[in-house]
Amino acid sequence: MPQLPLAHPFDDDKLREECGVYGVIGVADAANFVALGLHALQHRGQEAGGIVSHDPVTGFQSVRRFGYVRDNFTKASLMETLPGQLAIGHVRYSTAGSKGQTAIRDVQPFFGEFSMGGAALAHNGNITNALALRRELIEHGSIFQSSSDSECIIHLMARSFQKTIPERMKDALRRVEGAFSVVAMTRTKLIGVRDPLGVRPLVLGRVGEGWVLSSETCALDIIGAEFVRDVDPGEMVVISADGGVESFRPFRPASPRFCIFEHVYFSRPDSILGGRSVYETRRQIGVELAREAPVEADLVCPVPDSGTPAAIGFSHESGIPYGMGIIRNQYMGRTFIEPTEQIRNMGVRLKLNVNRALIAGKRVILVDDSVVRGTTSRKIKEMILDAGAREVHFRIASPPTAWPCFYGVDTPEREKLLASRMNEDEMRAHLGVDSLKFISLEGLYRAVGASEGRNAACPQYCDACFSGEYPVAPSDMIDKGFRTKAAE
Amino acid sequence: MPQLPLAHPFDDDKLREECGVYGVIGVADAANFVALGLHALQHRGQEAGGIVSHDPVTGFQSVRRFGYVRDNFTKASLMETLPGQLAIGHVRYSTAGSKGQTAIRDVQPFFGEFSMGGAALAHNGNITNALALRRELIEHGSIFQSSSDSECIIHLMARSFQKTIPERMKDALRRVEGAFSVVAMTRTKLIGVRDPLGVRPLVLGRVGEGWVLSSETCALDIIGAEFVRDVDPGEMVVISADGGVESFRPFRPASPRFCIFEHVYFSRPDSILGGRSVYETRRQIGVELAREAPVEADLVCPVPDSGTPAAIGFSHESGIPYGMGIIRNQYMGRTFIEPTEQIRNMGVRLKLNVNRALIAGKRVILVDDSVVRGTTSRKIKEMILDAGAREVHFRIASPPTAWPCFYGVDTPEREKLLASRMNEDEMRAHLGVDSLKFISLEGLYRAVGASEGRNAACPQYCDACFSGEYPVAPSDMIDKGFRTKAAE
Amino acid sequence: MPQLPLAHPFDDDKLREECGVYGVIGVADAANFVALGLHALQHRGQEAGGIVSHDPVTGFQSVRRFGYVRDNFTKASLMETLPGQLAIGHVRYSTAGSKGQTAIRDVQPFFGEFSMGGAALAHNGNITNALALRRELIEHGSIFQSSSDSECIIHLMARSFQKTIPERMKDALRRVEGAFSVVAMTRTKLIGVRDPLGVRPLVLGRVGEGWVLSSETCALDIIGAEFVRDVDPGEMVVISADGGVESFRPFRPASPRFCIFEHVYFSRPDSILGGRSVYETRRQIGVELAREAPVEADLVCPVPDSGTPAAIGFSHESGIPYGMGIIRNQYMGRTFIEPTEQIRNMGVRLKLNVNRALIAGKRVILVDDSVVRGTTSRKIKEMILDAGAREVHFRIASPPTAWPCFYGVDTPEREKLLASRMNEDEMRAHLGVDSLKFISLEGLYRAVGASEGRNAACPQYCDACFSGEYPVAPSDMIDKGFRTKAAE
Amino acid sequence: MPQLPLAHPFDDDKLREECGVYGVIGVADAANFVALGLHALQHRGQEAGGIVSHDPVTGFQSVRRFGYVRDNFTKASLMETLPGQLAIGHVRYSTAGSKGQTAIRDVQPFFGEFSMGGAALAHNGNITNALALRRELIEHGSIFQSSSDSECIIHLMARSFQKTIPERMKDALRRVEGAFSVVAMTRTKLIGVRDPLGVRPLVLGRVGEGWVLSSETCALDIIGAEFVRDVDPGEMVVISADGGVESFRPFRPASPRFCIFEHVYFSRPDSILGGRSVYETRRQIGVELAREAPVEADLVCPVPDSGTPAAIGFSHESGIPYGMGIIRNQYMGRTFIEPTEQIRNMGVRLKLNVNRALIAGKRVILVDDSVVRGTTSRKIKEMILDAGAREVHFRIASPPTAWPCFYGVDTPEREKLLASRMNEDEMRAHLGVDSLKFISLEGLYRAVGASEGRNAACPQYCDACFSGEYPVAPSDMIDKGFRTKAAE
Repeated sequence: MPQLPLAHPFDDDKLREECGVYGVIGVADAANFVALGLHALQHRGQEAGGIVSHDPVTGFQSVRRFGYVRDNFTKASLMETLPGQLAIGHVRYSTAGSKGQTAIRDVQPFFGEFSMGGAALAHNGNITNALALRRELIEHGSIFQSSSDSECIIHLMARSFQKTIPERMKDALRRVEGAFSVVAMTRTKLIGVRDPLGVRPLVLGRVGEGWVLSSETCALDIIGAEFVRDVDPGEMVVISADGGVESFRPFRPASPRFCIFEHVYFSRPDSILGGRSVYETRRQIGVELAREAPVEADLVCPVPDSGTPAAIGFSHESGIPYGMGIIRNQYMGRTFIEPTEQIRNMGVRLKLNVNRALIAGKRVILVDDSVVRGTTSRKIKEMILDAGAREVHFRIASPPTAWPCFYGVDTPEREKLLASRMNEDEMRAHLGVDSLKFISLEGLYRAVGASEGRNAACPQYCDACFSGEYPVAPSDMIDKGFRTKAAE
Repeated sequence: MPQLPLAHPFDDDKLREECGVYGVIGVADAANFVALGLHALQHRGQEAGGIVSHDPVTGFQSVRRFGYVRDNFTKASLMETLPGQLAIGHVRYSTAGSKGQTAIRDVQPFFGEFSMGGAALAHNGNITNALALRRELIEHGSIFQSSSDSECIIHLMARSFQKTIPERMKDALRRVEGAFSVVAMTRTKLIGVRDPLGVRPLVLGRVGEGWVLSSETCALDIIGAEFVRDVDPGEMVVISADGGVESFRPFRPASPRFCIFEHVYFSRPDSILGGRSVYETRRQIGVELAREAPVEADLVCPVPDSGTPAAIGFSHESGIPYGMGIIRNQYMGRTFIEPTEQIRNMGVRLKLNVNRALIAGKRVILVDDSVVRGTTSRKIKEMILDAGAREVHFRIASPPTAWPCFYGVDTPEREKLLASRMNEDEMRAHLGVDSLKFISLEGLYRAVGASEGRNAACPQYCDACFSGEYPVAPSDMIDKGFRTKAAE
Repeated sequence: MPQLPLAHPFDDDKLREECGVYGVIGVADAANFVALGLHALQHRGQEAGGIVSHDPVTGFQSVRRFGYVRDNFTKASLMETLPGQLAIGHVRYSTAGSKGQTAIRDVQPFFGEFSMGGAALAHNGNITNALALRRELIEHGSIFQSSSDSECIIHLMARSFQKTIPERMKDALRRVEGAFSVVAMTRTKLIGVRDPLGVRPLVLGRVGEGWVLSSETCALDIIGAEFVRDVDPGEMVVISADGGVESFRPFRPASPRFCIFEHVYFSRPDSILGGRSVYETRRQIGVELAREAPVEADLVCPVPDSGTPAAIGFSHESGIPYGMGIIRNQYMGRTFIEPTEQIRNMGVRLKLNVNRALIAGKRVILVDDSVVRGTTSRKIKEMILDAGAREVHFRIASPPTAWPCFYGVDTPEREKLLASRMNEDEMRAHLGVDSLKFISLEGLYRAVGASEGRNAACPQYCDACFSGEYPVAPSDMIDKGFRTKAAE
Repeated sequence: MPQLPLAHPFDDDKLREECGVYGVIGVADAANFVALGLHALQHRGQEAGGIVSHDPVTGFQSVRRFGYVRDNFTKASLMETLPGQLAIGHVRYSTAGSKGQTAIRDVQPFFGEFSMGGAALAHNGNITNALALRRELIEHGSIFQSSSDSECIIHLMARSFQKTIPERMKDALRRVEGAFSVVAMTRTKLIGVRDPLGVRPLVLGRVGEGWVLSSETCALDIIGAEFVRDVDPGEMVVISADGGVESFRPFRPASPRFCIFEHVYFSRPDSILGGRSVYETRRQIGVELAREAPVEADLVCPVPDSGTPAAIGFSHESGIPYGMGIIRNQYMGRTFIEPTEQIRNMGVRLKLNVNRALIAGKRVILVDDSVVRGTTSRKIKEMILDAGAREVHFRIASPPTAWPCFYGVDTPEREKLLASRMNEDEMRAHLGVDSLKFISLEGLYRAVGASEGRNAACPQYCDACFSGEYPVAPSDMIDKGFRTKAAE
């Protein structure tokens, strides 16, 4: 596996979305559209990608590869092996486990051949009872190809007594707990499902005479597709080649709990989530932050690139000039051989550089999207001070991240999260900055447009990473000894 | 050669710097420092890179590769083949000719073995009498390894009667016309030279007990080196392993003519050129532009990423809010198979997307660094209008680019330059925008700090791409029929 | 997949063994022994290879690759990923289907995780009721990973109610029809099984304190292992890490029917099969052939390399001198671009050349191991005549190959076999040679030591490819319309 | 560079030819013919290969690659980059130096651009005054691209005052000492030259309307070319596209001294050298050996593959049966990870195996082509005895190799040659065999057809490796301290 230069400069110290899903039906060369869509969703998963297509002549065809979409799914000789008017695809991050263990067989979409024909399936999210399901399936003779939680769905489908694949899929998904936005295909149908809480996004679009399912709207734009609507929480859509979209509600109704961190960090700023512009939400977070935690300073600097919209908002609200105090190396690079003469903060230097001429002598407000382990924040602070800044003030566009996510985001164990061990003031001292302020949970809800504020009884979003209130009990983790806030 | 995803989103429609050079002496594992330095200079050349090192035991060692520094010069097994306390390196763009013809033998540094020992050499710039020199050298029995103009220098050195390599280098460079910043090495010396006009940058830094030569200061920062001073136009520095820096002036004195486009586009914003912050210069260009060409609007948007500092400056000066109306796909991608259903502006969509929610209904000022062919500007305008902008105003952070560069920048032939065929108003009509304004040449000189303005008799910078006033006659090109402005 | 230069010069016109299997228990670095063993079995399958190892710390580890063993399983960095004292491996040929369809997931060993732990399995042979089994398993919810017949065994094991893996394996193999020599492993046991007829070979050896299972004895020699005995037809051996070998007889007893073609062509000449030297058997075939079909001539030439031992025997018996009239290009090569000026018999020329000086003016006896399609025999005849031979006499070291094999050998469809359409005399005329003689089936039985001759009622070997008498009904093929001789 | 499995089983303990050359003019797609020819010459050099072609439209094109011809020059996409009716090629072994130092720039053909146009050149042999020439050329300003002795020729040509390339080549080659068979090309001519002694072979052939130059005749056969004649020692042929062959004699006349080891080992047995069949010569060596050194035994075995023809001859003359006592693994393999449990003679086992059933209890005569270091002979002897042979008698098809070759063969330093330190009896004891006999130098001359025996005053062949009588003084080596026999 070639070394993958990740594109977020501080990936080691960020939460990471685990997947993006995409599907197209009813247009020629559907796989080429899927390749483009996955390219636009690359920020949701950079480790590997896969596409399955179906054509009446060649049947199902599949290509799965480590690495970027642009490096794999751009060669004509490869794309010609994926013919047909129906295709789905997936991009994935490595799971929390050691990267070395990821095998190509863990790369989605997964495929299963049933007596009524084949089906392929791509999953964004995380199944919180996957271990229990897996144990049960193995006891009954299923053989797993991968270590992925998502493979359970295919095996549950294989064992269903239903006569059609969509019905088998309903059967299977009713047994599954956790978060899932699934895009699947049979020989003739494109299927999309969101879990009852709608934790992960999924949207429906139209391209020419065909239909598109995508994790985000930015991947509709890239192919010139028109946004139609969100797939609803708890909804299954079954789309035929001739253009009909059937809608089903296979699950018990529930109050939606969309992941609020999609707004803060995961999704692309040019996407629209649940009717709200991500960019505008982030800018608004900056505005709220400037109101909640003002400070006298000379310069508002984003930590690139994810802190940029909030920094712009902070500058707009505070009137303090916005400037690029940190310049990102657009070529990135994960590893170089460290020369004998030790270079301080070498890892960070590969990715960014301080704009000394701008920083020197200034009181600087640094706006970042989140603090996870805090390791990168410390290094950035050092570089800023080395460059001659007079003061450094951190403003964070999310509340303290104190709880791990079990719904499809790769988070460190709880004790690795800085905010699980320290309060805001301890963190400030730990980072060694002049001030440190996180936006409040209420402020964040205001920024996402919940004018009435957070509904504590039944929050409008999943904010478990901040609040420790898990909308679905993470049963596998509880079996392993994890204690939720409620249990503490 | 793997497909290289270039990092400037509109690389096809930009001028391209052809090289970056770097050298280190006096520290262990010098090649590892060079690898880091070249990584920081990657924006100056992405097609290929090379490093030569010297160690008393293994002698000269060389590695030259197509592709990014991070993909080639990061493996321990490779870097171990480049031992020693002395190393130089080079990153290069393809020359104007067809890319297919570039061979690994054209990748620098070049190496020559002379009777007094070997020397390696890396060159940023362009030799304007290379064809004449090459013809003469071949007639006298020299055998060229490459199609590169830079190889002439090595052959001229081989034929010099001087007894030391630095003296042979002086001999050779006195015969060479054009622009050159050269970093070279013998078994014991690191050498840096700038042509008499100092067209291309070259700086001297200190790292521990050792010394560094670099095209830009940003590549000093990455290894924690301290900036010492610019190598002067017309200066040769010869640096010994024991730390002494000797300075020579081998050329007839001349008025410096540093490339003004380094400030506009080529150099990284976090570099300091001739004592001036590139970022601040670009921001100031935006300020000047807002003064010269104000317009009523709702939003100032940069064309990412190179237009960003000028857009910030324009916003500061005009008071019009700054916003990210165009979102760049940070994973880029040069080629995908175009699906049958034609996607409008597919090439541009791979690289960026319009932030519809921000743009819709607004009067938008787009700030870009330059207009070369104009092809990309048209596509961006279309996407902005499709997204519902009410008005589109282009503001360009450089004067019209009407003349090709012969000093180390890859420019299209003159007739391909939009500004060579049209005046500002014709260009506005051609692009189909509500207004189009370039900064004036005088305004640009003000922004780079020439408070007295441009000295028409003897301009302080090389601005031939705007003015057609070539400080060194491009003799090879004139032989081929090119007519300078003076000749018209 | 890189182009694989096959090593038999006329591979296109030969029957091809589909697999070799190997396993080692009770010695450190068992996977390294397996790599060596597979290298020695490379002639049994060149398309791909795989190794699974088990170590208490790391659990099961697996590597599967296209290409030669020597190109894949020789790197320390790779072999270190296969730790432990227990490992099995497999080399495979492509199956009869189009090569393009082979995927890495079809490469063995296969692995399954059961409730009592994992097991890996490698199979030489062919399951003649695989399609029926697969259909049944899918109907009950099994999901197949590959298109391989061998995967049925793993799924049958997964669905068994037995409590141990060896017992589940017995359950599974009792449902399987056809030919199988299986090497399998659990976390602590190495298992070997041969089908009741013992169609494919499998031997047991001892290396130091450990044990080895191998398709052939030549792969014991390479690691310095001592030959212990053949695994018997219908026997299962279960070997523990502490050295015990348990023997079971899970199947109903049957008269053995070892594949006689292993002696003629598949096995290496330095192997011992069922107590007989393959080399000596082949030499003896030559002796019998010289007795059955003598001819006056000047020279006995083998068609290299597989005809060599029989040619030596023919020369010994006939007294006609042995000589190398055909020289094999030891570097082989499958494909070159054919130059515009058409080269006659280009494919054959890449692999061999006639030794003109030896052939010219002579009456030549060519000894080959078999005639399949006959295409290569024609080309060789032409080259021999072009070189000036006076007469060409073909002597074939096997009876006419008139029936396809369904027990693990890749044969063309019946109508492609020359001997299915023509008698000996028609073949002679078709090939255009002065004489053509195949050894008789009786002569072949004499050569393999059946002094009493072939027992027509119950032949001592499987000779279905010559006789059309299939010892196990090929039920999947019969479902598809194949008609055995008995059915005709 | 991928690991290259060499094809001679004991390559580590053999002398190695350093090159093969090939050229074609006057047929379409000449490079495809050259690829085939180089494939047939692969035994003369396996490390790397190169082809240069010329076409009036595209000019000179060149491809040079490490590895086998079949792996590099078989792809249509590559071969299409080598258009034209004129092409030359080269295969090379690594030189005596460490393999790691070989760079792609050392791979021939070499190319030089002169004022009258370009020329490419491929050289088989070795220039014995290359160091002196190189020193002189560097002093006058030539820059060497490679560490190859052959590059001198191109530089000498570049400095000649002659007006045409053939005349410049004459000038250059008159300054060169040693052995050379050169194939060269200009834009319109194919040129072949042999040194005055004709140490290395070179033949002329005809294909269709075009002409071929080749190191050996076996490479004419592969393309269906007709053998015309040997290029004479001291002859230069200049062949035009329109079919004319001009012959020149640029050197002072000398008595030919063709390399006798080409007959013993280097050339392919199906080649004709100086009118003699290599196979027949080798068989005749076996006959002479049986006469000179008879022994009572049960079996004559070749050490495969190079000992085979002599073993056949020995068997014919002695009446002792010929058999394959050693079986070569046709897949070879240079390196495997040695398992912890040490395997005796692992290196040899990767390449061959003893045919125990044939060897056990027998008195065995092993026929090998030569003994260099003797390391392999010892290991083979051990394996033969382990297999139960009663006696082992070595018969060697060449006289003791006691002197290094300086004419294009890679030999160990003199002290590494077993025969330089021991007489025949000491070698027998060292190898631990029952008898050891080399053919006499006189016997060898008889076998190559010198019925009158070796002319001691002026030997008909170069036999320096046996006799220490160097026909051309190895001046560079003498400068380095080497003492010839005459000097001792």
